[in-house]
Amino acid sequence: MKEFLHQQRHYYSPVEFAMAHIGGTWKMPILLALRQGPVRYGILKSSIPHISDKMLITQLRELEEKKMVTRHTYIEKPPRVEYQLTSRAEKAFPVIDLLAEYGCFLAREEGCLQ
Amino acid sequence: MKEFLHQQRHYYSPVEFAMAHIGGTWKMPILLALRQGPVRYGILKSSIPHISDKMLITQLRELEEKKMVTRHTYIEKPPRVEYQLTSRAEKAFPVIDLLAEYGCFLAREEGCLQ
Repeated sequence: MKEFLHQQRHYYSPVEFAMAHIGGTWKMPILLALRQGPVRYGILKSSIPHISDKMLITQLRELEEKKMVTRHTYIEKPPRVEYQLTSRAEKAFPVIDLLAEYGCFLAREEGCLQ
Repeated sequence: MKEFLHQQRHYYSPVEFAMAHIGGTWKMPILLALRQGPVRYGILKSSIPHISDKMLITQLRELEEKKMVTRHTYIEKPPRVEYQLTSRAEKAFPVIDLLAEYGCFLAREEGCLQ
């Protein structure tokens, strides 16, 4: 697999680089929660079970840095903040859907999902 | 996404369960190195750049526990040990290939791969 540098970090493969964008417990659930279009922070928080405010804020910041999500602030009283997927993030869904399928296959094999 | 318990651990989604089997820096490179058939430990080690013996042994043990890899010991002088993919692991390659494709797309967008 091709190795390369990005922002002074050495990646051993494109797979590792992809995981830097969508990996971890929370990035994929956040991307999935934004799949239908822009969502306000409060609704995003309540649509992802078990996530804390601290974790959601940290993960959203990381996703913004990686140009997977954009943040829009509307000057209203109170101000409204919405998050939206970038086109780069939209292209992750075939992978995420296939991962979910594989996870369901494994869970059925292990007898923990019907 | 469906939540479930497996071996007393709570998984928030099938995606998370899939990542427990193929996630992390080294599992996918190891699975890819076994793609063409059984491989002896020494050859496996030399075919995965940057991996240490300690890390390879730990990851192989985890992959065995998750029934992704089997280990065969041949009673010879010296004994020969070979690792092989299970059918469950073979089914991970469509996901891994798509992740690699997505990673290449991202790397090209960032200008770090041609």
